[in-house]
Parts: sequence; C-alpha cells; structure tokens
Amino acid sequence: MERTLYVINPNSTQAVTDAFDAGLAPLRVPGGPRIECLTLREGPPGIQTQLDVESVTLPLVRMVQGLDREHGAAAAGYVIACFSDPGLHAVREATSKPVLGISECGVLTAMTQGQRVGVIAILRQSIPRHGRMFGAMGVAGRIAAELPLGLGVVELADADRTRARLADVGRQLRDTHQADVIVLGCAGMAAYREWLQAELGLPVVEPTQAATGMAIARILLDSAAR
Amino acid sequence: MERTLYVINPNSTQAVTDAFDAGLAPLRVPGGPRIECLTLREGPPGIQTQLDVESVTLPLVRMVQGLDREHGAAAAGYVIACFSDPGLHAVREATSKPVLGISECGVLTAMTQGQRVGVIAILRQSIPRHGRMFGAMGVAGRIAAELPLGLGVVELADADRTRARLADVGRQLRDTHQADVIVLGCAGMAAYREWLQAELGLPVVEPTQAATGMAIARILLDSAAR
Amino acid sequence: MERTLYVINPNSTQAVTDAFDAGLAPLRVPGGPRIECLTLREGPPGIQTQLDVESVTLPLVRMVQGLDREHGAAAAGYVIACFSDPGLHAVREATSKPVLGISECGVLTAMTQGQRVGVIAILRQSIPRHGRMFGAMGVAGRIAAELPLGLGVVELADADRTRARLADVGRQLRDTHQADVIVLGCAGMAAYREWLQAELGLPVVEPTQAATGMAIARILLDSAAR
Amino acid sequence: MERTLYVINPNSTQAVTDAFDAGLAPLRVPGGPRIECLTLREGPPGIQTQLDVESVTLPLVRMVQGLDREHGAAAAGYVIACFSDPGLHAVREATSKPVLGISECGVLTAMTQGQRVGVIAILRQSIPRHGRMFGAMGVAGRIAAELPLGLGVVELADADRTRARLADVGRQLRDTHQADVIVLGCAGMAAYREWLQAELGLPVVEPTQAATGMAIARILLDSAAR
Amino acid sequence: MERTLYVINPNSTQAVTDAFDAGLAPLRVPGGPRIECLTLREGPPGIQTQLDVESVTLPLVRMVQGLDREHGAAAAGYVIACFSDPGLHAVREATSKPVLGISECGVLTAMTQGQRVGVIAILRQSIPRHGRMFGAMGVAGRIAAELPLGLGVVELADADRTRARLADVGRQLRDTHQADVIVLGCAGMAAYREWLQAELGLPVVEPTQAATGMAIARILLDSAAR
Amino acid sequence: MERTLYVINPNSTQAVTDAFDAGLAPLRVPGGPRIECLTLREGPPGIQTQLDVESVTLPLVRMVQGLDREHGAAAAGYVIACFSDPGLHAVREATSKPVLGISECGVLTAMTQGQRVGVIAILRQSIPRHGRMFGAMGVAGRIAAELPLGLGVVELADADRTRARLADVGRQLRDTHQADVIVLGCAGMAAYREWLQAELGLPVVEPTQAATGMAIARILLDSAAR
Repeated sequence: MERTLYVINPNSTQAVTDAFDAGLAPLRVPGGPRIECLTLREGPPGIQTQLDVESVTLPLVRMVQGLDREHGAAAAGYVIACFSDPGLHAVREATSKPVLGISECGVLTAMTQGQRVGVIAILRQSIPRHGRMFGAMGVAGRIAAELPLGLGVVELADADRTRARLADVGRQLRDTHQADVIVLGCAGMAAYREWLQAELGLPVVEPTQAATGMAIARILLDSAAR
Repeated sequence: MERTLYVINPNSTQAVTDAFDAGLAPLRVPGGPRIECLTLREGPPGIQTQLDVESVTLPLVRMVQGLDREHGAAAAGYVIACFSDPGLHAVREATSKPVLGISECGVLTAMTQGQRVGVIAILRQSIPRHGRMFGAMGVAGRIAAELPLGLGVVELADADRTRARLADVGRQLRDTHQADVIVLGCAGMAAYREWLQAELGLPVVEPTQAATGMAIARILLDSAAR
Repeated sequence: MERTLYVINPNSTQAVTDAFDAGLAPLRVPGGPRIECLTLREGPPGIQTQLDVESVTLPLVRMVQGLDREHGAAAAGYVIACFSDPGLHAVREATSKPVLGISECGVLTAMTQGQRVGVIAILRQSIPRHGRMFGAMGVAGRIAAELPLGLGVVELADADRTRARLADVGRQLRDTHQADVIVLGCAGMAAYREWLQAELGLPVVEPTQAATGMAIARILLDSAAR
Repeated sequence: MERTLYVINPNSTQAVTDAFDAGLAPLRVPGGPRIECLTLREGPPGIQTQLDVESVTLPLVRMVQGLDREHGAAAAGYVIACFSDPGLHAVREATSKPVLGISECGVLTAMTQGQRVGVIAILRQSIPRHGRMFGAMGVAGRIAAELPLGLGVVELADADRTRARLADVGRQLRDTHQADVIVLGCAGMAAYREWLQAELGLPVVEPTQAATGMAIARILLDSAAR
Repeated sequence: MERTLYVINPNSTQAVTDAFDAGLAPLRVPGGPRIECLTLREGPPGIQTQLDVESVTLPLVRMVQGLDREHGAAAAGYVIACFSDPGLHAVREATSKPVLGISECGVLTAMTQGQRVGVIAILRQSIPRHGRMFGAMGVAGRIAAELPLGLGVVELADADRTRARLADVGRQLRDTHQADVIVLGCAGMAAYREWLQAELGLPVVEPTQAATGMAIARILLDSAAR
Repeated sequence: MERTLYVINPNSTQAVTDAFDAGLAPLRVPGGPRIECLTLREGPPGIQTQLDVESVTLPLVRMVQGLDREHGAAAAGYVIACFSDPGLHAVREATSKPVLGISECGVLTAMTQGQRVGVIAILRQSIPRHGRMFGAMGVAGRIAAELPLGLGVVELADADRTRARLADVGRQLRDTHQADVIVLGCAGMAAYREWLQAELGLPVVEPTQAATGMAIARILLDSAAR
C-alpha cells in the first residue's frame, strides 16, 4: 500500500502551493511516503488575519476527515502548511495520523541549528499572533525577534523585491537582534532558502520542509508499528 | 442611548447561560451597561474538545458582527463566556468594541488576589488546551496547577456531586499545589463561588464575573471617550 | 448604605490626585460605588525612589485602617494610585476589602488589549524597580520594553512638553520594540490617554482607570456576597 | 554517491547500539541515506556522570572528523545517540554536516505530540544534568517532570523488570504530573516504545528515532542544495 | 582603619541574632572585615507578615544611615538578615556601601551547589511573599518547591522539634520535589545546617552565611578600589 | 594547615593568568585561604570555540584530582577561571571541595548589583554558547544583552584599543539595552574593572573576583564544619 503525506495549503493561492511543492522535491524519496500538496480551495487568498485563520480550521478538519475516509491507512499523515498553524490541534483530534504544523516545526527545527531564532514574517500584523503561538509552545525565550517583510502574500511573486527585503530583514535579525538561525515565516518562500542562507551566512529554515521532514519520520515509524 | 454588554455562551446549553447570567446580577447597576446573556444556538452542548472550540469561532464572529450591525454603538462590548476563550482574537478583529475572554480575565483577576493560581477544569482533556492559552498569555509561571473535576458540563447539574468534587479538587490545589487563589475553569459555576470560597478559605474567581467586570470598565471609559 | 472606593495617591501632590480624579469621571455611575480620591498628605511630592516607596507603605496601611475603622463596610475597597504599587501587599493584609494596585492592573488590563506591552515611565530610575515588580507578577515576558519620559512628576504640568515626549517615547515603543499596547506608567497622565491613543494608533491604558475598574467589579461582587 | 548518516553511541556497550539500531529499521528507506550505527569503543559502558559525558566529547569529535575525512560528502550527517547530547555543540563546529542530539530531538519531537512532556531517565543522578540541558534549550516550561527508572544501563537487559519500571514511572508522569507525551530518556529503549505507548495510552517518543528522523530530512535537503 | 560589616537582624529577637552570629564565626578572619551583628530593637519579634516587612524598612534605612554617619568608611557594608530581604533596595539607595540580602544570596549561592533549589520556610504564609521575591529575582524556574516548617520563629528554640520538622520537610523537598540543594528560609537556623546536610545527603545553604560571604568579598574589593 | 584555593586558567596564556592574579590581590587576606593561580599548560591559547571548551574539561578534571591527591585537605577549593565555565560540573563530581565557575558567579553576583545584567563578551561567536549557559542557569530573563568586543584574547594586550571598545560596548549595553550592571565576560580584564565602572557610572563585575569571593566563603564555612 502506498502511503501519502498530504501537505495542505490552507489558503487558496495555488502559486503558494506550487512554491512549497517544489521545495519538497528533495524529500520525495522512493521508500518514503508520497507527498501530495493540496490547496484548500475555500480558503482565503492568504492567511493574514486571525479571522483568516479561523475561517480555515473547520474546512481543514473536513478535508482531513475526507482524505482519511477516502484513503484509509493510505492517508498517512498531514502537514498544515501555513505559518499560523491554523486548526492544528483540531485536526489532531480529528485523525489518528501524525499532524504537523509548519510554524511549530519551523521553530523547533531552527532550535537545532542556532541559539537565537530570527523569524521573518510577511506582514507586521501577524507578529502578535505568532507571539501567542510561540508562547503557547513555550519557546518564546528562544526567539531573538520577528520582523516583517511588509509584503503581501501575493507580492511575493516579485522575486527581486522579495529578495531585497529578505536580505534586509535577515541582516537586521542577524546584526541587531543577534539571530544565528532564520525561519521563513511563510509557506511560500522555499525558493529563497538557499539563496538567503548564502546571503546571510546563517542557516535558514523553510518551515514546510521542516514539517514535512518531521512528518515523514513519524509516518515511517507509525507504519512500522502497525 | 442605552449601551449593552453582550455576554455570549458559545455552547448551546441554556442552563449554562442561565447560571452565569444569575452570577452577573451584582454587576447590573443603573449607570452601567445593560448586560444581556446570549446563547449561541448553533454551538455544541459543551465546549469539550478543540474541535468544539473551532466550531464556534466563526459563528461567534458572525453573531458579534450581527449585533454590531443591528445595534451600532448601543452594542457596547462583548464577553466570550467559555473558559477556552474561543475565537477571542478573531472577534477582536471583527469589532472595534471591547472583547474580553473569561479565561484570560479569570486568570488575570486571580493574579490580583493570590500568588499561586489554581484552576479547576471540568474535564481533564481541556487542561493541555488551557496550558497552551496560559503559555500564549505569558502567565504559565503563575499557575500552581490545573486539576479536573472529571464531570461533564451537563453533569454539573447535580449540585451535591459538583460541590463534593469542587471541594476535593480545591483542597488538592490548596494543600498539594499551594494555590492561594482558585479560578473556576468554566462559565457555569457561578453559584458555587461563595460557597467554595468559604469551604477553602481562599478567594475564588468566577471568570464570567471577572470578564464582565473588566468589560464594564472598558465600556464606561470608551463611551466617555466618544 | 453608600459604599465608597478610595483611590489613594501616595504622593502629596494634589495636582496628581486631581488629574486621575478627573480621569475617573466615566467610572462614577449610579449603581457603582462612590469614588473618592485621597492624597496622602505625608507622602513625598512624587514617588521616585525606592525610599519614596517605602516611606509611604506604613502611612498607607494606617490610612486604610483609619478609613476602615471610620466607615466600616461603607469603605468598600482601595486603589493604591502609584505605579510602584507601594505597600500593596501590606495593605491587603490590613483590610478584608479589595485592594488593587495601578501597576498590576495597568499591565494586566493591557494584556487584554495587545500582545506586547510597552510601558512609559516618568523617570529612568524607576525602570529597574518596575522590572522587579513585573518579575514578581510573572509577566515579564509580556513587556516589550519600558522607556522613560525623562520628566519629573512636577514637570508633567507642562502639557506641550509632555505631549511631545509621550508621542516620541510611544513611537519608539511601537516601532523599535513592537509594542502593540501602551501603559502609562504613572498615576497622573489620564488627560493624555485618548490623545496618545489617537497619535499612536494603539490602545493606551491609564492604570488608575484600569485599577478602579477592576476594583468596582470586585466591590459589586463582594457586596452581593454579603 | 551513497550518503550515510552515522548514528553514534558514545558508550561502549554494543547492546545499546544494537537496541537503537533495531529501532531505526523503519527509517531505512531506499531513497534515504544509509543509516550506520557505530559504537564509540573508547567510551565508558554507560554515560551516567558528567565526567562520562566529558570523557566522550573529544573522541566523538575525532570520530566525526575521521569519518568526514574518510568518506567526504558521503558522510552525510551525524546523530549523537546519548540522552545527555555529549559534545553536541563541539561536533557541530567540527563538521559542516547536520549534527543532531537525541535529547534535543526527543524533546522537540515530543513537543509536537503533547503539551506536557514527561521524561523517563535511567538514573536519578542524570536528572539535574538533563535539567540544565532543557534550560539551555529554553524548553524547561514544557517539561512536566523527569523521573528515574533507577536501573543501570546494563540492567536494562532484564526486560521484565524494565517493563515494570517503565509502566510504573510512566503512570506517575501521566497521573501525578499530567504528562500527555513521554520521552524515553535513553538511547537503548527503542524496543519498549510501542508497548509503553499502548500501556499508557500516551504517545511515547524514542529519541534516537526522533533525531534520526530529523537528520534524514536535513540530509535530503542539504544534498539537494549542493 | 578597621572596616566593619554590619549584619542586621530586622526582628527584635536577640536569640535569632545570636544564632546567626554564632554561624558567622568561620567568616571572621584576620584580614577580613569585622563582622558585627545588630538587632533592630524596634522590629517585631519575628518578620511573619508583609506588614512586618514594611514596618522595618525605614528603621533599617535609618539604622544604616546612622552607622554610615557615625563610622564613615569604617562602616564597610551591610547584610539584611531576614529571609524576606526587607528594605533591601531602599537601603541600597541610602548608602554607597555593599548591601546584600540573605534571601537573594541564599538562593544565588544555592544555585552554585545544585540544580533544583528547595527552600524551607518557617511559616506557610511567607511562601507567597517569597514567591514574589524569586519572581522579581528572575530565578523562579530554579526553585523546586518551598515548604513550611509550620513553626513560629520563637518555637525554633525547641531544638528537637525543629530538627524533626527540618528533616521531614527536607526529605519531602528531596524526594517529592527533587531538590538537590536546600536553602534554610530564615536567619536563625545556622546551628542546624551541618546536621541537616548530613541528614539529607544534600548541600544546605544557611543564607546569612551566604550573604555575609558575598558581602566580605565585595568589601575587600571595594576597599582595594579606594 | 594552610588551605589553598586554586584559581585555574584553562587557557595556556600566562598573561591572562597574571591579569586575574593581580585582580585577586584584595581577596588575599591573612585569615583566608592562600589563592594560587594556575595555568593549564595544555589548554589552547584562548577558549574561543566549543571545541576549545571541550578540550580542557578532562585536563581540568585531572589537574584538580592531582591537586587533591597531592595536597589533600590543604587543597581547599577551585575556581575555573574561564567565562565558559568549562568542565564545571565534571570537576564538581571529581572533588568534594567547592568548585565555582566565573561565568555563573559573575552573573549571580551582578544580580545583586543591578536588575538588568549586561555582559561584554570578547568574541561574537561565544555569545550563543553563553546563552546556553544562562539558560541552563535559569537566569536568561535577567540578561539585558550580551555584546562582543570583537577582540581576540591576545589583542586584549593593547590597552588603549581595549578601553575604547569596552567603553563603547558598555555604553551600548547601558543606553540601548538598559543594563544597570555590567559583567566582564572574560577572565583577563580585571585591570579595567574600576576604570570602566567610573566610565559608565554603573557597577562592573569582574567574574574571577566574583567566583573567588564566593569560593573563599565556601572554604571558610567548610573548614569550620570539619
């Protein structure tokens, strides 16, 4: 039986799904689960507000329940690919499969690559929401700072502008806030990871990759346990 | 113009609404806002799981938006009367009026009445969820412990059993965990507050009262500012 | 029986008492307690040092004991209206009535209006003292930063200078330290709250109002319990 | 080029290496790195004291440097398979490959499976050392408690006795300390994971599996980046 | 010029002063400062309440100012020998000499002798006050627990009863709360330190000794600097 | 019997040993222990990396064991004089004498002289390592910031350059990060302490002095106990 890990973009912007899908290529290996990236069609174009977050939690639960029902054990696990980890704990209740959030996994993975974690948010308004999440996770003391790009999810399509802002904000995190590892606070920036890493001379964590990596391990271990 | 504070029970159990409504009697004063307690008809009978929490967030947003639309400035503020503070931050985005959660206000108010806050949950399964909230609020260090009654929201109707468990759990919090103030971790236990306070010899905070109190002050100050 | 909440200025500067007295007007409502603002005549002109703090604790205890003795149950509660919360815990031992401090209530109230709390102190030398208090309260993780106006309590009389400094320091808290809610770290700045709120586009908490609001709720609930 | 992840047992007890080697079987997949488990021959029979920890740090560094030299890019990453994470940060300096510790990864992985992490140590004397590590990682607030089996690394060979103690200590963590996820605080207990999970009704994390899983993801991503 | 370190008992019970005076004998050395133990005659018989704490702060300030005036540079430093550190920060403002509190120094010194600090209070009612202090010091995470003897300061005169309670409470801290170092939360228990240390097999810190030791070093360094 | 406190420089640079040796002059008093400063000949010229730290732990253990063997009870205690506290916990296991680290004692001593501790590191690369230590100590909340001089241990010989950098970094800690006490994050800067103190108007802690002071007290008390 082929097992599939579903990586779900809770926003409806296919370009974001495509961006992290491409970033997951290295994690697609013969013996591992299939990795299928899905877009929540009924989601908003971007998750920018708390209302956006709440608007996708039940749809995510239903989507996961539907996949579970349709595929049974072949649906092996789920990643919620939005840096606000919408519905994470509700989805965990709704399925017995591993469910990972990219915010939690991005930060936890960064904690193995540096001592002071800098986070690059897309929008300033998300930072208090992320702060609540870091507090809930009990890791607020490891966050050097979170700074915003000040770009909309859609604006990220302008690669030059995005690069310029990423480098600028990354340098601020490194030089002013002493971050020694950077987390990209968004699901759609995989293509910039290696470039930014080289630019800053610091490890950069792409959180969808981080969560997918942790999910794959969980799936392999769970499958063996059956 | 008469201003109204809406205290909303996100579960559909009218008995819970009635219970906290009665507990709010002392806060109904001539010069203060009207206090109207509403039941979210589409909510589940009790908020016991994370899915229950998520199931009421958008309905709460819509309810608040509806009240805002219908009553304009006469709708002066909102209390979310469930100890999981469902949708708190989403509702805050949806209205410019004060919005208070009973979990946050219960704990914050307790912090002015003792140093080590003991929380009495209804069900054990809610405790990790509350733990995430206390972490998000940055007050986890003030929580002595949270212990469950192990009673369903509905079972709370059996007053003798409820009293016996409240006293037992309260004593454990006081004697084993050194709590010097107790928060009732549920919207529907107002009738037991004074009794438990006497029983334990410790201040007991009923969180719907706490949130309503803080909301009234915010409303009075906001009204004056207009 | 008419109940009175006493809001006590521990410094001897009547202008400060008058300033917060005016700010409490919206909280004076028909069914609520009378709110009487008192000045501790034997206090120093301003509470600027730890010695100033200590110099007023026993006088505050005696004042409260005197009011309790004189008025009995009609003396319904007390607010210590100095941002160092002098004598707060001693006064609590000395009376069975609710006793609230403006520092604790200012910060706790701000915690319901934003995630990162910025505090505006009058003088730099008070900041370490406030830091100890925030630590004792267990909320240090919620404080984005505290910055001083660098004005003496008396200098606050120059409204233009005060406004300029408030706006300047508020902007620093907002832009450099990412505060999304501001607490005025002094009893005497009520008149600037709404103006500063508009200036910064952030909620601003006047702590004497915050403490008075919380005290009123406590009094209403306590009275009902008798 | 075939890449290999080296999972190194810093103690010299081959039975421990064999135990975690067996536990890693599910993580050996066609497209993933080879996983080779090595025993540090010069290590002590078990890492029980801080001196034991220190005694293996330089040997671990030399071993990793030797593997790097011998295998070049084919040596793709390293896991230090001892719950004291000996030499973790020194090994990180000595190689550009991913280096993961089982203590950090065990706890971080557990943080995605429960809110209150219970840790089962082998010996009581290790608990303060682990406490320093959790502090250094900034996750002490997530640790419900750590309790010892009170068995020597060698005694773990007695499966019945080990099971009895694991169940007993696990129940204490669950029932007295409210842990909702358990981490096995030792490299050699993989064989008990599923059994204990069923016994307690809680997720149980085997830290060598957790670290190996995180290392595989890092290796796949790093390889792709070259 | 002979320099003197004044170790001041803020309560008026000479037996307490005598008890810690005897405990300081080992710290009286030829090249070190004279150590003179003083009793604050106007203090209460024991510092048991917050009001007791506040009642001695100004007298302590005046006493120190008097000693400074009388002895000039020969008054080389001060220790406040009460586990509530009454007036510590006010006295620091009142003199340029080193001022140490036994609570802060007891805990800080214990932090170099174990990872989890257990504190033995005299009375239960002091524990919330000490909790505020540990929070203000930012070391709450290092406190395993604080448990009370439940004996009055005066009752400590009954050595057998005191020993029995010390051993009992110490064992609870060690066995239930995993403390690996103990602080005696009172100025008057020096005579029991070594005995309790042997009884528990854990280091025991007598806080007046700890503070005096830190004060001597400060005095020697300050004197050299002049 | 004359007792000796050994203060050990884990790096091989005699000039560093000489520098802190000179700084300890005030702590050499007739009745106190002899203070002998030793250089670990096999150490690296400076402890700059984690590998440097690890490279000296076993040599430090052996050195201490050798001194214990050679001198018996006359070897009365040990200070590890490197701000990374290398081998601290291993050495503690290896001897029954007091063992103090200069990093822990520097910070703990500073915590009695100010509320926000600023640390001046020599090199930027040490800051994450120190951050782990402050976390392990549970005092991270008291650290205002740690900033680097950006000078090599050897470069510290250029007194003018060192002074200029110390003043510059100290001012940043004081003015930007609100530090009100400074710790010199290196064993070799004793000669600058008083000068920097005057320059900044803040207390400055030289950590070798701090640790030596705490060790002397421990030795005097231990000796008395025998």
